[in-house]
Amino acid sequence: MSTSAQFDFAPLLPAGLPAPAARWTGLAKYSFVGGNNDPDQVPVDGLLEAMNAVLKREGRNLATYNLAHGPQGYLPLRQFLTEKLKRDAGIACTPDEVMIVSGSLQALDLVNHTLLAKGDTVLIEQETYQGSLNRLTRLGVNAVGIPLDGEGIRIDALAEALADHKRRGITPKYIYTIPTVQNPTGSILPESRRAEMLKLSKEYGVPIFEDDCYADLIWNGERPPAIYAMSTHGGVIHIGSFSKSIAPALRVGFIVAPWAIMSRMLPLKTDAGSGALEQMVLSEYCTPHFAAHVPKLTRGLRAKLDTLMEALNEQFGTAAEFEAPKGGIFLWVKLPDNVDTLKLYQAALAAGVSINPGPEWSTSKAHSGSRLRLCFASPSHEQIREGVAVLAEVCRKEFGVPARSSNVEKRG
Amino acid sequence: MSTSAQFDFAPLLPAGLPAPAARWTGLAKYSFVGGNNDPDQVPVDGLLEAMNAVLKREGRNLATYNLAHGPQGYLPLRQFLTEKLKRDAGIACTPDEVMIVSGSLQALDLVNHTLLAKGDTVLIEQETYQGSLNRLTRLGVNAVGIPLDGEGIRIDALAEALADHKRRGITPKYIYTIPTVQNPTGSILPESRRAEMLKLSKEYGVPIFEDDCYADLIWNGERPPAIYAMSTHGGVIHIGSFSKSIAPALRVGFIVAPWAIMSRMLPLKTDAGSGALEQMVLSEYCTPHFAAHVPKLTRGLRAKLDTLMEALNEQFGTAAEFEAPKGGIFLWVKLPDNVDTLKLYQAALAAGVSINPGPEWSTSKAHSGSRLRLCFASPSHEQIREGVAVLAEVCRKEFGVPARSSNVEKRG
Repeated sequence: MSTSAQFDFAPLLPAGLPAPAARWTGLAKYSFVGGNNDPDQVPVDGLLEAMNAVLKREGRNLATYNLAHGPQGYLPLRQFLTEKLKRDAGIACTPDEVMIVSGSLQALDLVNHTLLAKGDTVLIEQETYQGSLNRLTRLGVNAVGIPLDGEGIRIDALAEALADHKRRGITPKYIYTIPTVQNPTGSILPESRRAEMLKLSKEYGVPIFEDDCYADLIWNGERPPAIYAMSTHGGVIHIGSFSKSIAPALRVGFIVAPWAIMSRMLPLKTDAGSGALEQMVLSEYCTPHFAAHVPKLTRGLRAKLDTLMEALNEQFGTAAEFEAPKGGIFLWVKLPDNVDTLKLYQAALAAGVSINPGPEWSTSKAHSGSRLRLCFASPSHEQIREGVAVLAEVCRKEFGVPARSSNVEKRG
Repeated sequence: MSTSAQFDFAPLLPAGLPAPAARWTGLAKYSFVGGNNDPDQVPVDGLLEAMNAVLKREGRNLATYNLAHGPQGYLPLRQFLTEKLKRDAGIACTPDEVMIVSGSLQALDLVNHTLLAKGDTVLIEQETYQGSLNRLTRLGVNAVGIPLDGEGIRIDALAEALADHKRRGITPKYIYTIPTVQNPTGSILPESRRAEMLKLSKEYGVPIFEDDCYADLIWNGERPPAIYAMSTHGGVIHIGSFSKSIAPALRVGFIVAPWAIMSRMLPLKTDAGSGALEQMVLSEYCTPHFAAHVPKLTRGLRAKLDTLMEALNEQFGTAAEFEAPKGGIFLWVKLPDNVDTLKLYQAALAAGVSINPGPEWSTSKAHSGSRLRLCFASPSHEQIREGVAVLAEVCRKEFGVPARSSNVEKRG
């Protein structure tokens, strides 16, 4: 019987493996996690049209690993990216400085494996992407959080951290920043701070790892130049993704880097290529349609953000504090200090609501213990309203806030 | 200037990185490497038809990581695989025992990261897949090669190796085998040897890692049951791929394993899913068409094998010894003992012909030093003939064999 579990694998397992996975039980009824996108905004017809065109023309090339375009990926997609990055981010690069990867998660992994060893130090935004934090933890890398304010990373704190580490003889391996629609706080780092960060990078010899995964999703479409574009010293690695602008299940991201470091990352991409169909269809679709698609998408996302903020105001009143993000698919919320959002997460999950508890998105438990991240792209407007109502009820039960208000009629 | 290379990354690089990549210069004119498939056999029309159907129906789900099917991948594809594996390999499994991965290379990585630590020992077929050998080297794992004969791994040698390691207090972490169209030798391990391998696996507590990537490509379609199917002790991990049956650029493979070990591999797949479009289209296409597609493909491959063997006979005469493989896309060739195929590889590359030198596909330099692997699916019949002629000429120049024969007219 091939499903017999008599064989004991346990003695063979190396030390340090993660705990075993639990069985998959699906998404929560009200799912405010995961960075999923808005299903109504997936440009299915456009993708299909593009797929038909490109497969008829080039389908035979699927017989060859990397479509015979080499390890950096499908050349037309890299060409689209050089044009798009110039237009949207001010980046001047050639296709040779672009690598297509299997989602920005692979970009994170490649950069980390190229630069990091156990025991190294990196500087990161104090509140940051959970996936990056987890990777650094798993690698045994010391992730030092630099505080943020409403405009992003605080440069004074960054300068102090760099000076302090230098005094202690430590060179951080990179400064990791999500400067354009910061995850989770939603800020956009102004050009002046980008210039100061570059100055510090040059002064201390610490490269900047710029993660621009959400940079296309800005409500007013106004974007400072990428740090990579502003750099004159070549010490920046820039990554991005199509997950948020088109669809996450496609698994297509990219790295932009000078050849000096690109040539060190390439041999670590040992997967014989990222998925060909996605690269082909994205190139074919995006070249004519990307610029028109994004404003439509962001309008839809902004509407969902509004619904979420209204629901929070209605259900939580003054107990929920937040600033509207400048774009993106998530909202960073502060609840009263007596709310432990790790505990709230558990209770909410039991009630069918999933949230991102702040401490999983921050290096500071003190700062984040009562904060949470809520993604709004995936649930419908109705699910947002209902989910927030359930969350408020759970929070009230667990922590006594928000106070019950007789003025607030419960929906549904 | 963002392309400035002034920043010196060198001091930041950790020890042990691979050498920097060279710039991509394309494939050789006559490319007998890479495991690429036959472009004429990619079922483009069928894939397009399937893509249109599945995207119209489910395209919205691209907005959700893993299409909301969880980390083991697109459920309909797993369901197709359970049916296909039952029919073709005798494997009885449920979709929960199947994981979709980004090509069998990811399967190799997941199994290795779940079971191996630096300094471990594994038993492998003495001649084996280069990608597996390289991974083991990079992991610092001791890969002990077990000799093969015309039917595959020699069980007497395997038993001896297991006993010898036990005496020395070493438990190999797995026995890695490519039993069905062995790469590179092309043999098929008979059922009796599979049973003996299972007996040894059980006796010594060493799991079997069965790599069935080429198992669909058998000329006469006759396949012994998979080792996984025959196992009664649950100590087998089985992997396969769509790269050789459909197209390699799709990057879709799969792992079949009992939950006890599947649950340990899952947390290591940190990519938020493999490419969705490929999973969707393969499921939609393969469910009705896979069974009819494969014999058509293998007929085309067999014709190319015949062309290759004829060309070798014609150009090399008795200098090239080989046995027709039972299927697959490669031929394993023995040249005279004075031919160093590592050197031949270099000289041939300069002449526009790429080959796989034996020592990169074997743990025994002594056995493989004059052997080479030639892939025949990708080049056209004409390119096969021309490429073999160029190879023969290069070989003659470098090593004096094959002898020039006045009976052999050089083509082209």
